[in-house]
Amino acid sequence: MTDPNLENRAPKDLPKAPDAPSVFERDGEDTHFGIPEETVNAVILALEANQDQLVRELMAPLHFADAADLLETLSVDDRRQLLEVAHEVLDPEFYSELDETVRDEAVDIIGLDAVAETVAELDIDDAVEFVDELDEHEQKHVLEAIPAADRTLIEQGLSYPEDSAGRLMQREVMTVPKFWSVGETIDYMRTNADKSATDFGNIFYDLVVVDPRHTPLGTVPLSVLLQSQRPVAITDIMHEEMKLVPVDLDQEEVAFLFRQRDLVSAPVVGDDGRLVGMITIDDVVDVIDEEAEDDILRLGGLQEDDLYAAAVDTTRSRFSWLFVNLMTAILASSVIGFFQGTIEQVVALAVLMPIVASMGGNAGTQTMTVAVRALATKELTTTNAMRQIGKETLVGGINGILFAVLMGNVAWLWFSSPGLGIVIGLAMIINMLVAGVTGAAIPIMLERRGIDPALASSVFLTTVTDVVGFLVFLGLGTAFLL
Amino acid sequence: MTDPNLENRAPKDLPKAPDAPSVFERDGEDTHFGIPEETVNAVILALEANQDQLVRELMAPLHFADAADLLETLSVDDRRQLLEVAHEVLDPEFYSELDETVRDEAVDIIGLDAVAETVAELDIDDAVEFVDELDEHEQKHVLEAIPAADRTLIEQGLSYPEDSAGRLMQREVMTVPKFWSVGETIDYMRTNADKSATDFGNIFYDLVVVDPRHTPLGTVPLSVLLQSQRPVAITDIMHEEMKLVPVDLDQEEVAFLFRQRDLVSAPVVGDDGRLVGMITIDDVVDVIDEEAEDDILRLGGLQEDDLYAAAVDTTRSRFSWLFVNLMTAILASSVIGFFQGTIEQVVALAVLMPIVASMGGNAGTQTMTVAVRALATKELTTTNAMRQIGKETLVGGINGILFAVLMGNVAWLWFSSPGLGIVIGLAMIINMLVAGVTGAAIPIMLERRGIDPALASSVFLTTVTDVVGFLVFLGLGTAFLL
Repeated sequence: MTDPNLENRAPKDLPKAPDAPSVFERDGEDTHFGIPEETVNAVILALEANQDQLVRELMAPLHFADAADLLETLSVDDRRQLLEVAHEVLDPEFYSELDETVRDEAVDIIGLDAVAETVAELDIDDAVEFVDELDEHEQKHVLEAIPAADRTLIEQGLSYPEDSAGRLMQREVMTVPKFWSVGETIDYMRTNADKSATDFGNIFYDLVVVDPRHTPLGTVPLSVLLQSQRPVAITDIMHEEMKLVPVDLDQEEVAFLFRQRDLVSAPVVGDDGRLVGMITIDDVVDVIDEEAEDDILRLGGLQEDDLYAAAVDTTRSRFSWLFVNLMTAILASSVIGFFQGTIEQVVALAVLMPIVASMGGNAGTQTMTVAVRALATKELTTTNAMRQIGKETLVGGINGILFAVLMGNVAWLWFSSPGLGIVIGLAMIINMLVAGVTGAAIPIMLERRGIDPALASSVFLTTVTDVVGFLVFLGLGTAFLL
Repeated sequence: MTDPNLENRAPKDLPKAPDAPSVFERDGEDTHFGIPEETVNAVILALEANQDQLVRELMAPLHFADAADLLETLSVDDRRQLLEVAHEVLDPEFYSELDETVRDEAVDIIGLDAVAETVAELDIDDAVEFVDELDEHEQKHVLEAIPAADRTLIEQGLSYPEDSAGRLMQREVMTVPKFWSVGETIDYMRTNADKSATDFGNIFYDLVVVDPRHTPLGTVPLSVLLQSQRPVAITDIMHEEMKLVPVDLDQEEVAFLFRQRDLVSAPVVGDDGRLVGMITIDDVVDVIDEEAEDDILRLGGLQEDDLYAAAVDTTRSRFSWLFVNLMTAILASSVIGFFQGTIEQVVALAVLMPIVASMGGNAGTQTMTVAVRALATKELTTTNAMRQIGKETLVGGINGILFAVLMGNVAWLWFSSPGLGIVIGLAMIINMLVAGVTGAAIPIMLERRGIDPALASSVFLTTVTDVVGFLVFLGLGTAFLL
C-alpha cells in the first residue's frame, strides 16, 4: 500500500534529484530535523519508475542516519528495491542505524560478501553489534572474509556477555603515563595522530592517566588539557573521582551511571583493574533509548518493537501475550459464572459489573506505572518501598470513596435502587483499595524475584482487579439484593 | 513509615560515619552504582537519633547526585530534617538533581536567601531551570539577591520559550575566527584559560569556527584539534556539515537531532543566524529521559511523576483521569443496559461478555503502544501511516480468527451451546479487527490534530473496544440465541 497522493501523480511528474539538503532548514513554524517528506516521495517515485540512477543520486548525498530513516519508512518491496539498486552508495554506518528487523532484510538482499566489507569498515563496537545479530553460519562467513586484525577484535567483543559494558566500549583509548606533563601529552598526540583523526573517525573526549600496570588513575577532559599550561603535570589536572566501569557490567547500570553523573565517557576495566576500553555517551544514549522503549513496549503487552516486522511475525509475537490475557479473562469470567443465579434475578448487576472492574484496573495501572518507572530509575528502593505501598493504599482508598459516592448515586438513580447504589459503592472502595496495594506491591515483588516488572505486572494486576471487582460486587449483590 | 528492620535496632547500634565510598565498588555479582543501602540506613538512623553532626559527616563526602538520590528515598519528615541540619554541606548542584516536587519542598525549608546563594553558583542553564520553577514572588526575591551579571544571564534564559533550545544551551562558547591556525587556537585557549577550567567548571567538546558576523561556519572536535599540526588552518579541520539548532526549537526536536546524529554538542543560533550558545549532550540526555518518561506515564493514565508527591496531591491529580474513565465505563455499561432482556434469558452472555471486551482492549493496546512509540521517534510518518493501519488491521483480523476458534470452543464446552460458541467467535473477530484499526488510527489522528497521542489514545481506544465488544456480542446473542 503506498500513499494515495502518490498514485495519482503521472510518471512525467518525476522530480529531479534535489540539491543536497541545506544544513539549516526552516519550514514556517515547524522547524524540524529528520528526513524531509519531499525527499521520501522523490525516492518512492524514482523506485516506481525504475529510475535506478536517480535513486542513487537521491540517496548518495544523504547523511547515513537520514538514509536509514528513509529506508525504514518504505514498504518491504520498496526497501528491497532500494537496497538492490543503491546499496553501493550507502555509508557502512547506514547499517548500524537500522532497526534490527530491517537490517536482517538488508543482509539477505546485499549478500554476505557486501556485509563483510561493511563490517570491516565499522567501528569495532558497531561491528560487534552487527555480527552478533547474524545467524551462526552467516557470522562464520563474514568473520572469515574480513582482515585478521579486525576479526580478532570483533571476536573479543563477542566474547563479552550480551548487553554488557564490554559490548558498548571502544577498544582504542588515549592513555597517558602519570609522569607526563601537559606539553608532553599534547606533543605525543600530535606526533602519533591517528591518520583518520581529521576525518572524524575516532573522536574522544577524555584522556585516561594510567600507572605502569595500565590501571586508570584519573581522567582529563580535553578542554581542561587545552586550557592548562605546558609544564603542568598531567596528574595535577586529572579527575581522580572518575567512575570505573567493570567490563561485564550490565548496560542498564552503565546507562544509570552516565545519566546520574552527566558523563560523556568512562574507562572500562577488567577483573584485574586494568584499562580495557572506554565507553562514550553516544552508545549510552542508544541504551537509554532502548531501555525506555523496552519499558513502554512491555507495559503495552509487547515483546519487541514490531513496527517493521511482517504481519505474520507480528501476529505470532503478539499471540502469546493475548493468550495469557485470555486465560486471566476466562478466570475472571468463571467468577461471574458462580453468580449466574443472582444475575438472572438482578440483571442490573451484569450491567454495572464492568464499571467496578474497569475502575479498579485503571487505578491499579496508574499506580503500577509509577512503580515500574521508579524501579527502572532506581528511585524506588528497599528504603521507601513500604512507604510507597502505604501511600498508594491511601490514594486508592480516598479515590475509592470519592468514586463510590459518585457511582453509588448514578446507580441509585439509573436503576431506582438505593441498595444497588450501596453495593456498587462498597465494591468500588474495596476494589480501588486493592488496586492501590497490588499496583504498587506487584512490581516491587517481581523486581525482588528478578522478573522484569514492566513485562509481567499488568497481567497479575488486571487478574486481581477483575477477580476482586466481580467477586466483591456480585458477592455483595447476592448478600444484600436478593 | 520507616523500614521495620530499622525500628528494631537499638540506638546504641548507631553506625560510625563510613569512609567515603570507594570509586569502584563490587558487591558479589551485583556490581552496581547508585547510593549504597548502608549509607541510606546510616543517615536514617543518625536523623532518628538527632545526631546532626553525624548527618553532616555522612552527607558531606557524597557526590551531589548521590546526595540527591539519598534525599529522595527518605520520608517527607526525614527529608525536612536532613535539609535543616545538613543543607550547608551540600553542593549547589545537589538542587539541580532533585525531582521538582522535592526541590519545591527544599526551597521552603532552606529559605530564599540560601536559594539565591545556590542559584548564583550554578551553571546558567541549571540556574534558569531552578528559578523558572519558583513562584513569581520567590523569583523576584531570588533574582534581586544575586549579582547583576548572573541576573541578566538568567533573565535572558527565562525569556526563551519553555522547553526550547534556548533553555538548554550554555551561553559560553569557545569560538575561533576562520583565519586562525591550530597553533594560534591552542595558544589562545591556554592564555585565556577560564580560571575554573581545571576544577571542571566549564567542560566543552567542540570549538565553533565563526565568521566576523559570528555566524557558525563549522565545528572542530577537541580531539581533532589536538591531533592536528600547529600550522594547519582551522578551516581545514572543521566539520562543515554541522547541524545548527534554532534558539526557539522545541527540546524534543533537539533530542531527536542529538540521538539521530550521535552528537555531543551543537551550536545554537538566533533568527539572524548568529551564534548564541551551545547545547551539550548532558542536558539532552535529561530531555530524552523526560520525553520517554512522559510517554510511559501518559500511557499509564498519569499527568506527571507523582512518586514524591503527598498522598492528597497524588489523589487529586489521578482523579481526573479516573473520572474520564468512569464516563467511558458508564457509556459501555449503558450499551449492556439495552440488552437486559437478553441477559435475563441467556445469562451465559453476562458471564462471557467481559472476555470479548478485554481481548479487544488488550489487542488494541498492543497496536496503540507501537504506534505511540513510533510517532514519538518519528518512525511513523505520513509515508507509512496507511500501510501501518493496513498491517494492524490484518494482524487484528488473524489473531481475531485464532482466538475466535479457541474461545468459541471453550464457550461451547462450558455452556454446552454451539450457538454461543459461534456468537462469541464472531464477536471476537469483529472486535479484534476493530481494535487493530483503531489502535493504529487513533494515535495517528490525534498526532495530526496536535493532541499528544500518549495522553489521549487509550481513553478513545478502550471506549471503542468496550462499546463494540458489548454491542456486537450481545447484539449477535439477541439475534441468534433467543
